[in-house]
Amino acid sequence: MSIGIGVIGAGVMGADHALTLSRAVGGAHVAAICDADAERAARVAREVRAPRTHADGMAVIADPDVAAVLVASPDHTHAELVLACLKAGKPVLCENPLSPSIPACLEIVAAEQALGRRLVQVGFMRRFDPGYVGLRAGLAAGRLGAARMLHCVHRNASIPGFFDGGMLISNAAVHEFDIARWLLGQEIAAATVFAPPGAGDMLDRLFLVLETQDGVLVDIEVFMTAGYGYDVRAELVCAHGSIARRPADPVRVCHDGRESTAVAADWRDHFGAAYQRQLQAWVQFLHTGQPTGGASAWDGYAATAVAAACVSALAAGRREDVRLEPRPAFYS
Amino acid sequence: MSIGIGVIGAGVMGADHALTLSRAVGGAHVAAICDADAERAARVAREVRAPRTHADGMAVIADPDVAAVLVASPDHTHAELVLACLKAGKPVLCENPLSPSIPACLEIVAAEQALGRRLVQVGFMRRFDPGYVGLRAGLAAGRLGAARMLHCVHRNASIPGFFDGGMLISNAAVHEFDIARWLLGQEIAAATVFAPPGAGDMLDRLFLVLETQDGVLVDIEVFMTAGYGYDVRAELVCAHGSIARRPADPVRVCHDGRESTAVAADWRDHFGAAYQRQLQAWVQFLHTGQPTGGASAWDGYAATAVAAACVSALAAGRREDVRLEPRPAFYS
Amino acid sequence: MSIGIGVIGAGVMGADHALTLSRAVGGAHVAAICDADAERAARVAREVRAPRTHADGMAVIADPDVAAVLVASPDHTHAELVLACLKAGKPVLCENPLSPSIPACLEIVAAEQALGRRLVQVGFMRRFDPGYVGLRAGLAAGRLGAARMLHCVHRNASIPGFFDGGMLISNAAVHEFDIARWLLGQEIAAATVFAPPGAGDMLDRLFLVLETQDGVLVDIEVFMTAGYGYDVRAELVCAHGSIARRPADPVRVCHDGRESTAVAADWRDHFGAAYQRQLQAWVQFLHTGQPTGGASAWDGYAATAVAAACVSALAAGRREDVRLEPRPAFYS
Amino acid sequence: MSIGIGVIGAGVMGADHALTLSRAVGGAHVAAICDADAERAARVAREVRAPRTHADGMAVIADPDVAAVLVASPDHTHAELVLACLKAGKPVLCENPLSPSIPACLEIVAAEQALGRRLVQVGFMRRFDPGYVGLRAGLAAGRLGAARMLHCVHRNASIPGFFDGGMLISNAAVHEFDIARWLLGQEIAAATVFAPPGAGDMLDRLFLVLETQDGVLVDIEVFMTAGYGYDVRAELVCAHGSIARRPADPVRVCHDGRESTAVAADWRDHFGAAYQRQLQAWVQFLHTGQPTGGASAWDGYAATAVAAACVSALAAGRREDVRLEPRPAFYS
Repeated sequence: MSIGIGVIGAGVMGADHALTLSRAVGGAHVAAICDADAERAARVAREVRAPRTHADGMAVIADPDVAAVLVASPDHTHAELVLACLKAGKPVLCENPLSPSIPACLEIVAAEQALGRRLVQVGFMRRFDPGYVGLRAGLAAGRLGAARMLHCVHRNASIPGFFDGGMLISNAAVHEFDIARWLLGQEIAAATVFAPPGAGDMLDRLFLVLETQDGVLVDIEVFMTAGYGYDVRAELVCAHGSIARRPADPVRVCHDGRESTAVAADWRDHFGAAYQRQLQAWVQFLHTGQPTGGASAWDGYAATAVAAACVSALAAGRREDVRLEPRPAFYS
Repeated sequence: MSIGIGVIGAGVMGADHALTLSRAVGGAHVAAICDADAERAARVAREVRAPRTHADGMAVIADPDVAAVLVASPDHTHAELVLACLKAGKPVLCENPLSPSIPACLEIVAAEQALGRRLVQVGFMRRFDPGYVGLRAGLAAGRLGAARMLHCVHRNASIPGFFDGGMLISNAAVHEFDIARWLLGQEIAAATVFAPPGAGDMLDRLFLVLETQDGVLVDIEVFMTAGYGYDVRAELVCAHGSIARRPADPVRVCHDGRESTAVAADWRDHFGAAYQRQLQAWVQFLHTGQPTGGASAWDGYAATAVAAACVSALAAGRREDVRLEPRPAFYS
Repeated sequence: MSIGIGVIGAGVMGADHALTLSRAVGGAHVAAICDADAERAARVAREVRAPRTHADGMAVIADPDVAAVLVASPDHTHAELVLACLKAGKPVLCENPLSPSIPACLEIVAAEQALGRRLVQVGFMRRFDPGYVGLRAGLAAGRLGAARMLHCVHRNASIPGFFDGGMLISNAAVHEFDIARWLLGQEIAAATVFAPPGAGDMLDRLFLVLETQDGVLVDIEVFMTAGYGYDVRAELVCAHGSIARRPADPVRVCHDGRESTAVAADWRDHFGAAYQRQLQAWVQFLHTGQPTGGASAWDGYAATAVAAACVSALAAGRREDVRLEPRPAFYS
Repeated sequence: MSIGIGVIGAGVMGADHALTLSRAVGGAHVAAICDADAERAARVAREVRAPRTHADGMAVIADPDVAAVLVASPDHTHAELVLACLKAGKPVLCENPLSPSIPACLEIVAAEQALGRRLVQVGFMRRFDPGYVGLRAGLAAGRLGAARMLHCVHRNASIPGFFDGGMLISNAAVHEFDIARWLLGQEIAAATVFAPPGAGDMLDRLFLVLETQDGVLVDIEVFMTAGYGYDVRAELVCAHGSIARRPADPVRVCHDGRESTAVAADWRDHFGAAYQRQLQAWVQFLHTGQPTGGASAWDGYAATAVAAACVSALAAGRREDVRLEPRPAFYS
C-alpha cells in the first residue's frame, strides 16, 4: 500500500526530497537511492530509512521495489534517466530542467507520446506553492478580469561560485518562465533581455521582458546577490485589480525602532511548503492516477525553449522570438 | 518500519487527524479506527486506507497492530481511554482536554508517574504552529528581554448551536491557557473574567485577565461570533520589544479600492500546518523516543485547572486564585 | 483676515504648536507668546515670527491682537487660564488635561454654560488623527455592526525621570479614555486596574479594563518603557468585523534577513498629522464658527473623572465605578 | 510678513494649490488668482479669501501684491508665463511640465542663467512625498549599498476621455522620469518602450525600461485603467537590500473573510501630503531663500527630454538614446 520511490541523486536537492518523502508525505517510502558519492547515498539512506542504495540511476530504475522515480541528479543526466523511466513504464518526477537541450526535451516528448501515457512530471514546484496557487485561483475566479502584466522578482542572497548570464537564465529565470506560462495559460512569444553594461562575467543580475502570444507583458528581475535573503515575488496585474505573491512570515517583531518580519534565507525556507505539496500530490497521483497539475514534459520543453531564446536575446542585445513546436493534443 | 496508529473517533477532528496521517506524515499509517457511528468509521477507514475498524476505543487500544493511539472521541471519554493506553503501555495523543475533570486529570498524571514513562501527549497543537513557535523562539533568543504582557485574541466566525460561558472557557480559551503557560514558562496564579452585562445564556464573548506567578499579565479576548472569520492572534510584549503572531496569507489582492489578504475561515484553515507538524513530531517520537515538545499530561491537568478557576471567577464576578498541585519532578 | 493666536507656554508642547501654526496652518499667526522662561519665549517668538512676548498668560489673554488662545503651560495652571479666556470671551484650545481637578473642570463647564457659547476645546488631538478618524468612520458606516470591545495599546520608548502609577493614568492612559468615549459615543461606567506585583514606585506599566454604560469592554495597555519606540494602537472589535489603527510607514526596507517598516520614535513623530489637523480645524472654527469635532470642556471633565476612578481602582485593588454628573444638554 | 502668492489657473490643480495655501500652509496667502473661466476664478477666490482676480496670467504676474507665482494653467502656456516671471524677477512654482517643448525648456534654462538667480521650481511634488523622501534617505544612508534597479508602478483607476500613447508618457510616466533621476542622482541615457500589440488608440498601458548613465535599470509600468484605485509604488533595489514606497493606510479592517486597507481613489488622496509639503517648503524658500530640494528648470528640461525619447522609442519600436545638453554648473 506504501509506494516505493527510487531517488536518483543524494545531493542537496535529492536528500531534501528523500527527507520530505520519509517524514512529511504519507503513502510512500524511499525504496532505494543512489549518488555518484556512494557514502553520501548511504548516509541519506540511513536517515530516511531506505532499505538499499544502488551504484547508479539505471540500477535504481531497474529495482523491482521501485515503483516510481525521482530524478535529482546533475542536469545533463536528466534526459537519459527520464527516457529510461519511460522505457521501464515507471512514473518519474524530474527536477528542473527536463533537459538543457531542446532536442533532448523533444525526444522525451516524443517517447512519452509513443508510450501513450503521461508518466513524466517536471519539478516546477512553484505550481504547488500556496502563493502561486492563490494567484492562479484569483485569476480564474474572474472578478479581476483578464491578465495584463506580470511582474516577477527572483532574488538570491548570494551565488555560490561562478555563474554566468546563461546560468542566470537557465537556473534562475527558468522558474519564472514556467510559472508565467502556468499562471497566464499562454505561451511566451518573444523575449528582450537587459543586462547592466560592463558586468562581463561578473554578471549577477538581469532584467527580462517577455511578451506572450496574447500580448501580456511579463517582466522578470533576476538578482543573484541581493544579500538580504532569498526573495521571490510576483504581481499579476489584471484589468480590474492585481494579485501578488509576497513573503508571509506569521511572526512580527517590534524592536529597535522597526516593525519587521523575516525574509527567507534560502529556497528551502521559501518553498518548503511547495516541495512538500508537490511530493504529496505526486504520491496521490501514483495511488490514484489522477493528474496533479504539475508540469508535463511539454512544459519542460517550453521552459527550455524560452530559456534558449533569452540566452540569444542577451547575446544579441535585441528582442528575440521564441519558436515552439506546435503543441500536441496529447499535452492539452 | 511504518508505525500503526489507532484512531479513536472519526468525527471532524478524528477524520482530519486520520487524513493528515495518511497523506502528510511519513513513517506511520492508520492501522485501525472506530467511531460510535460505525458507518462513519468505515467511510474514513476507506479514505485513509485503514485495514480495519473496531466497535469501540478499547478494541482499538487492544489491537496488536496498533502501536500508538490517537484519541479524538467526546471529551468525557478521554480519561478512561488514556488510562487504558497507559495500562497497555501504548503512547497516546489525546485531543484537548485531557479530561474536563480535575481529579481525572490527576489520576492520569499519577498513573503515568507510576508507569515511569511519558506516554501521554495532549493535543495542544498550537505548540507546533509556526507562529507560536516563532514567538517562543523570539523570547528565548533573549534580545527582547523578559516577558511583560501577553495579549491573546481568539475569534470564531460563529458558534454552532448552544454555547454557554463555561464552554467559552473550556473549549475556546483553554487553548490560550496552554499557550500562555508554554510561551511564558510560568504557571497561571489568578484569573479575572469580564462578561458583557445582560448577555445571559446568549453569551458569545468574554474578556479574561490572568496573572502568572511572576507577575506577567495575560489578557484574552474570546469572541465566538466574530463573523468575518476565524482569527487567532497573540502579542507577547517584552521589556525591549514585542513579538506577535498574526495571519499571514501570502496572496495580496488589490480590488475595488482595497488591498487585502485572506483571513482563515475556520480552525482547520488556520491551524492546518500546526496539526500536520504535531503529528509529524509525534510520529518521530514514536520512532525515536525523542520528546516532541508537545503538551504533557501535567499540562493537560494545568489547563483544566485554570479553566475551572476561570469558570468560578466568571460565576463569582471576582478575581480567583488558581490552585495547582505541586509539579512533580517527573514533569519538569 | 489672519487671526492672531496667543500661545501660553513655550516648552516642547507650546513651541511645537507655535511652529505648526506658523508653518503648516493657514489663516492664523502667532500674535504673542509667553513662558516662565522669558528667554525661551523670545527664542520661539523669533522662530515663528511672533511680534511680541508677554510676562505671563494673563497678559497674553489680555493682548488686543490676540483673538484666540492656546494654553500649553503646566497642568495645574490650565483651569485659571481657561476661565480667564472665558471671561475675556476668547476661544481657547487647552492642552490636556483641562484640569487635574474635578471641581476645577466642573467650574469651567459651569462658566462656559453661563456664557452660553462654546469657547473651550481640549487638546485631545487624537480626534484628528487619520487613524482614529478612520476607526470612527468605519464604525459609523454601520457595515461592521455595533462595537463590542476596544483594545488599546499605549507604549512609550522610555519615561523621563520619575513617574508613578497615578501619572501612568493621568498623563498617558487619559488619552485612551477620551478616544474610547469619542469612538464609542458612550460614557465609561467602571474601571479595574491591574498592576504587576512588587513594582512599587518603579511602576512602568498598567493594564486597565473599562466598562462602558452599554457594556462595551475597553482594555488598555500602558507601557512606558517599551524601548523599541512610541507605539499607539487600537482595535475596535464590532459585531461583524474589526477596525484597527496601526503604524503606517510608507517606506518598507528589506535588509539583513528582515522586511521592516519604521515605528515612531516619539509622540511628535507619531501624532504630527493629528496636531496639524487639530490646529487647522481650530483655525477654521475661529474663521467660520463651525464646530471642529474637538473635545469640549465636558469631555475634559469626563476624562479627568475616569482618571480619578482609575487611580482609586489601582489603589484599592478592585473595580471602581465612575461617577459622572449628568451631562448638560449644552454639551450634547 | 505673509507672502502674497498669485495663482494662475483655477482648475482642479490650481484650486487645490490655492486651498492648500490658504488652509495648510503658514506665512503666505493667495493674493490674486485668474482663470480662463472668470466665474471659476471668482469662486475659488472667495473660498481661499483671495482679495482679487485677474483677467489673465500676465496681470497676475504684474500685480504688485503678488510676490511669487504659482502656474497651474494648461501645459502649452507654461513656458511663456515662466519666462514672464523671470523677467519680473518673481519666484515661480510651475506645474509639470515646465513645457512640452524641449526648445522652450531650454529657453527658460537660458533665461534663468542669464538672470543669475534660481527662481523656477517645477511642481514634481513627489520629491516631497514622505515615501519617496524615505527612499532617497535610505539610499543616502549607505547601509544598502549602491542602487541596482528601480521598479516603478503608476496606476490610475481610469482615464477621463481620450488619452494616447504620447500622453501616457508625457502626463503620467514623466513623474517617474523625474523621481528616478532624483532618487538615483543620474541622468537617463536610453529608453525602450513596450506596448501591448493591437491596442491602437485605445492604449491604456505601457511598460518602459530606462537605462541610466551608470547602468541602473529603471522599469515603469503605466496602467491608466487599473480600476481598483490610484496606486503609485516604487522599489529601489540596492546591492545589499531594497527600499519600497507603498500605500500606507493606518486603518486596517477585518470583514467578510478579508483583512484590508484602503488604496487611494485618486492622486489628491495619494499625494496630498506631498502637495502640502511642497508648498510649505516653497513658502519657506520665499521667506528664507534656502533651497527646497524641489525640481529646477533643468530638471523640467530633462524630464521633457526623456519623455521625447520615450515617445520616439514607442513609435519606432526600439531602444532610443536620450540626448541631453551638457548640464550647466549653475544647476549642479
